Amino acid sequence: MRLKVIMPVITEMWNRDALSLMQAVASKDSNIVIKNIEGGPISIESEYDEVLSAPYVLKETIQAEKEGFDAVIIYCFSNPGLYAAREKVSIPVIGIGEAAQIMAYCLGERIGIITTIKNSVIRNIKKSKIIGTADKVCSVVPLDIPVMELSNNELVEKKLHSIMIKLLDDGVDTVIFGCGSIMHMKEKMMEKYRIPVIIPGEAAVKLAEALVCMNISHSKKAYPYPPLKKRTGYQFEV
Amino acid sequence: MRLKVIMPVITEMWNRDALSLMQAVASKDSNIVIKNIEGGPISIESEYDEVLSAPYVLKETIQAEKEGFDAVIIYCFSNPGLYAAREKVSIPVIGIGEAAQIMAYCLGERIGIITTIKNSVIRNIKKSKIIGTADKVCSVVPLDIPVMELSNNELVEKKLHSIMIKLLDDGVDTVIFGCGSIMHMKEKMMEKYRIPVIIPGEAAVKLAEALVCMNISHSKKAYPYPPLKKRTGYQFEV
Amino acid sequence: MRLKVIMPVITEMWNRDALSLMQAVASKDSNIVIKNIEGGPISIESEYDEVLSAPYVLKETIQAEKEGFDAVIIYCFSNPGLYAAREKVSIPVIGIGEAAQIMAYCLGERIGIITTIKNSVIRNIKKSKIIGTADKVCSVVPLDIPVMELSNNELVEKKLHSIMIKLLDDGVDTVIFGCGSIMHMKEKMMEKYRIPVIIPGEAAVKLAEALVCMNISHSKKAYPYPPLKKRTGYQFEV
Amino acid sequence: MRLKVIMPVITEMWNRDALSLMQAVASKDSNIVIKNIEGGPISIESEYDEVLSAPYVLKETIQAEKEGFDAVIIYCFSNPGLYAAREKVSIPVIGIGEAAQIMAYCLGERIGIITTIKNSVIRNIKKSKIIGTADKVCSVVPLDIPVMELSNNELVEKKLHSIMIKLLDDGVDTVIFGCGSIMHMKEKMMEKYRIPVIIPGEAAVKLAEALVCMNISHSKKAYPYPPLKKRTGYQFEV
Amino acid sequence: MRLKVIMPVITEMWNRDALSLMQAVASKDSNIVIKNIEGGPISIESEYDEVLSAPYVLKETIQAEKEGFDAVIIYCFSNPGLYAAREKVSIPVIGIGEAAQIMAYCLGERIGIITTIKNSVIRNIKKSKIIGTADKVCSVVPLDIPVMELSNNELVEKKLHSIMIKLLDDGVDTVIFGCGSIMHMKEKMMEKYRIPVIIPGEAAVKLAEALVCMNISHSKKAYPYPPLKKRTGYQFEV
Amino acid sequence: MRLKVIMPVITEMWNRDALSLMQAVASKDSNIVIKNIEGGPISIESEYDEVLSAPYVLKETIQAEKEGFDAVIIYCFSNPGLYAAREKVSIPVIGIGEAAQIMAYCLGERIGIITTIKNSVIRNIKKSKIIGTADKVCSVVPLDIPVMELSNNELVEKKLHSIMIKLLDDGVDTVIFGCGSIMHMKEKMMEKYRIPVIIPGEAAVKLAEALVCMNISHSKKAYPYPPLKKRTGYQFEV
Repeated sequence: MRLKVIMPVITEMWNRDALSLMQAVASKDSNIVIKNIEGGPISIESEYDEVLSAPYVLKETIQAEKEGFDAVIIYCFSNPGLYAAREKVSIPVIGIGEAAQIMAYCLGERIGIITTIKNSVIRNIKKSKIIGTADKVCSVVPLDIPVMELSNNELVEKKLHSIMIKLLDDGVDTVIFGCGSIMHMKEKMMEKYRIPVIIPGEAAVKLAEALVCMNISHSKKAYPYPPLKKRTGYQFEV
Repeated sequence: MRLKVIMPVITEMWNRDALSLMQAVASKDSNIVIKNIEGGPISIESEYDEVLSAPYVLKETIQAEKEGFDAVIIYCFSNPGLYAAREKVSIPVIGIGEAAQIMAYCLGERIGIITTIKNSVIRNIKKSKIIGTADKVCSVVPLDIPVMELSNNELVEKKLHSIMIKLLDDGVDTVIFGCGSIMHMKEKMMEKYRIPVIIPGEAAVKLAEALVCMNISHSKKAYPYPPLKKRTGYQFEV
Repeated sequence: MRLKVIMPVITEMWNRDALSLMQAVASKDSNIVIKNIEGGPISIESEYDEVLSAPYVLKETIQAEKEGFDAVIIYCFSNPGLYAAREKVSIPVIGIGEAAQIMAYCLGERIGIITTIKNSVIRNIKKSKIIGTADKVCSVVPLDIPVMELSNNELVEKKLHSIMIKLLDDGVDTVIFGCGSIMHMKEKMMEKYRIPVIIPGEAAVKLAEALVCMNISHSKKAYPYPPLKKRTGYQFEV
Repeated sequence: MRLKVIMPVITEMWNRDALSLMQAVASKDSNIVIKNIEGGPISIESEYDEVLSAPYVLKETIQAEKEGFDAVIIYCFSNPGLYAAREKVSIPVIGIGEAAQIMAYCLGERIGIITTIKNSVIRNIKKSKIIGTADKVCSVVPLDIPVMELSNNELVEKKLHSIMIKLLDDGVDTVIFGCGSIMHMKEKMMEKYRIPVIIPGEAAVKLAEALVCMNISHSKKAYPYPPLKKRTGYQFEV
Repeated sequence: MRLKVIMPVITEMWNRDALSLMQAVASKDSNIVIKNIEGGPISIESEYDEVLSAPYVLKETIQAEKEGFDAVIIYCFSNPGLYAAREKVSIPVIGIGEAAQIMAYCLGERIGIITTIKNSVIRNIKKSKIIGTADKVCSVVPLDIPVMELSNNELVEKKLHSIMIKLLDDGVDTVIFGCGSIMHMKEKMMEKYRIPVIIPGEAAVKLAEALVCMNISHSKKAYPYPPLKKRTGYQFEV
Repeated sequence: MRLKVIMPVITEMWNRDALSLMQAVASKDSNIVIKNIEGGPISIESEYDEVLSAPYVLKETIQAEKEGFDAVIIYCFSNPGLYAAREKVSIPVIGIGEAAQIMAYCLGERIGIITTIKNSVIRNIKKSKIIGTADKVCSVVPLDIPVMELSNNELVEKKLHSIMIKLLDDGVDTVIFGCGSIMHMKEKMMEKYRIPVIIPGEAAVKLAEALVCMNISHSKKAYPYPPLKKRTGYQFEV
């Protein structure tokens, strides 16, 4: 099974860790390839960043299907370009933000999402309305740390503690680390707060593998092929 | 008052008619300028088309604010790039699809949307969930005519009749022509079926004017400025 | 364009200010006439007040259509008699509370309403369920000042500050002054708290103008003419 | 236990039958008095009729409390003036339309309402949103018979049959006769279609008795006493 | 009228008080018999307890119908076995938790439930989704006292005071004592906090009586008879 | 990885086929054991059957954890005993009906469920409310074939065709075979109707494996351990 992970930003700084965390949960026969987009933002913290990332996500998705990959994972909690990507190909396309929220449905009743910056709170709430999980998403709380600084593990850990406490106060029973760049704190937090923590990249790998094993993909009634037509302005095939 | 209408496709074939229908309802002191995007699809009939249109919509939106426009209208029922555009500027940005659905809220209780092709039905349902109008949108029915053929008035009219009857059967009380290219049938349909018909371009002009007159714009808490950061891959300022 | 504003209370104390704020946003060719009801309560702070106001609102609405007005505005955030008024006439009827909430839909994602007295909080929540905006109305907070004392600008301003802070804490991104009598604080609050503030009377004028310009009115399928029948007990035509 | 049933119309044509059907289900120690309003419409088939009925319903409700009644029932499926009446008194006030829908919650999962005329379908849907039962109300179908002709038992029965079949087709499992004037068909329909049929007047009597026995009434936090203030235009105490 | 109250636990410690509170509100001609289940848990504080209680609730329900009872009440706020019991018989079956929430619908707009232990909060929220009352249930707060210690009136009262204050702070207007074992505090709390308090056992008796008087029962379309088939593992008839 | 599949009925007639379909999608290192319950119904077609099955499901779940299984699957679309089982153990417990609906969330927007008998339609709708997927479940249609006859492949196939057509007419884009006993038609239906078909047993295996790989399990805040207490009436450890 060959999975292509699209890292929808132009920096490779997270690739190694992301690959490593996904491989740790993957099936033995899964071959995961990670690839950055060729243009777009260096990180995704707004709908604007998503818009600039999405055309390049499409390019990589289309390419993935041609190269014979079995499934595509969009490695960003905002799932940039997800639905458009599904329209263009027939192999499964999974966004890590979507995967995490879906997986949470069999773990608890009140989901809390830890996001990066304050700006992203309302954006996350809107996403859960589209995904269809808004009824169970009870609390979205920001770390208040920009994505580019999430590698500061000490700072992240300190903030995470106070947020976990707030989420428990809000009655949350299941937590999602709402960014692909919060990667090393799962065990620590789960142990301390006795509550499941979902790492979106892990959820996405397992969901993608599941669909491939089951030989099903997204519905082409829901995400039909775009009608062919004239398009300009992009130097790459989309 | 200066309004910039962004036609988020690369053909000018609808510009004249769209401008004309908007001017017909505009305030006397409104000066409407219509401008195509410089790259992207020739029409919008998929999420894929939206993705390719959106970066160019951003370009025109940013430009509009610099040029001193008072508000921006995105002339497509799918509102491509709407929320990202709001993030980038502080002047009001209105999508015609959003405007039509909002306006319908003071006209009736059960809204019907006439879309273009079958492919777009589920896409429309998802949009209304994001806009927040899903509870009142009871029926989305396709004309089954591609956007590029909507200038065939005879065909459009014939299909519209059968759809209006179906919508009334579904208990719909308020109709939206869910595409910026269905432009000449409002009066005919309203007269025959005794039911309000909303033309999205008209709704958007009046809503944009309203915000300008009231001296308010979208919330920068809801649509905050995107953090500045490195971005590549676009030959234009975005 | 001739708009009749029905002031659904028996005091004229707010007429001048209300007229003035509406004229400030109105189109140049809009001619706004403001008229009190002839019986009913002196202010509206309960469903009971609404019930006593509503028959007189109907009287004025029916009269407005006969006099050739193009649209009617009911100048109370509770919209007393709104749906019944729509049944009786075919010209657009807009309630200021409805208009404000609808307009908020294109400004933000989490709406906060500042109401007058504690008594009105639950009444407001119920209203937003009928209007269809309950999903986005996140917080309703009372000024804790009776309507008749809202002209005490100093007191109002003081209370407004603490409420604005509470609303921001609740994650609200768009604020509505939920009473037609809070009229002079918009700019101050917007400037200080960097958040859009909607004045219902302004929203209603622009929405009414919009409908008139677009030559549409509410659906007579949704608000059909009441069957003719014997009615007694009212000394005026209703 | 003394119950006052307010017949919110000016004709007594239904009083005897309504009294009789309520007495048939009432507790032995319940003393039911039925009283028409003194002004208003002859029947209720619109929001407009409700508005004209409501002030007189208030009058009777206030009077009821003074006369020592233990509870009040508003005998119309539209519950005109219900919430305002609750504000004015502390004894329980029950609307028959509300009672029927509440009672249905322990009988089935998909509720169907049979209303009188087509005009009333959307009005009923809106009511169930306010009552809070919209999620389970799956179908509202009109008899297509004006209220004043509902005494034509033969016609009513004929129409009822075709509607019951339609409701069963819609998957409805519990039926409400959505008008206080459909009074004699319960047993026949229940027997033929093997489905519970709720008569609103019956439900209201039992619910009112329940509250009195339990010594509770509606919440004065939800329906607080209206602030005292100047009111004009009504020749009776309200 | 003969009502069988199934006490779905194996202790009789609450029988006398429960019977007494139900008789206090019952109709004179109601004959209430209370009976424990013959196996299962000693109290119900988890879904697990419900599962073990439910088969024995079925046994008693089936028996009740055979013995000619007119209705059955399941005396636990979790309503164990409720829907299955309805499937097996045609006489009305009412759960006290369901009855309380339904009754609250005509008392207020924001319902608060006081539950026993923290464990039960989410379980209660899930129940209200099934019953269909989740929209109005705003707050579920635990006493933090195990069921078996609820007879400690002093402790219960102390905790109740702080919870009532919290519920009022949350904007709750109607309170339900969410356990059949909180039996003696209604008047005290109602008097002090001026808010209706619903005792589930009282609500259930009145609702059961209502259905019997109205000669209706739950829908056999919603709760059809289970197909006959081989079943093993139970030493009693179910 | 060791997975225990609990077949919550007393017949082994489906064991071989169920095992075979699950093994076909399982990871190579997954060891699946299938085990019937020791008492209960022969098939599950009602809430009543669920109630009788659930205690035995608990027994097998508790046993599974003791025996060192990594996860438990309840092989019935009704998920009997699911939440109680989660309370009793800390290893993941997945119901196949829950798994199928969750998986559908990343495949389409409008889910259709094919159930067995008419009796089960409303039961399925209620289940999706608890699972949290009701918003996307648009249509539940019965095969009208009792579970015990689902091995008649010819009959099943014939009925499936007409139902698939009905579901497509309803706008469904993703189909779930809503019973663990419809096992051999996936490929045929997917090929003919070009729409994903989810086999619940497959979805459950992949979801269970996912949780084990990710080293997470359901939240003990959502499904806390039941308080220890006296219980009688069961000859097995529960």
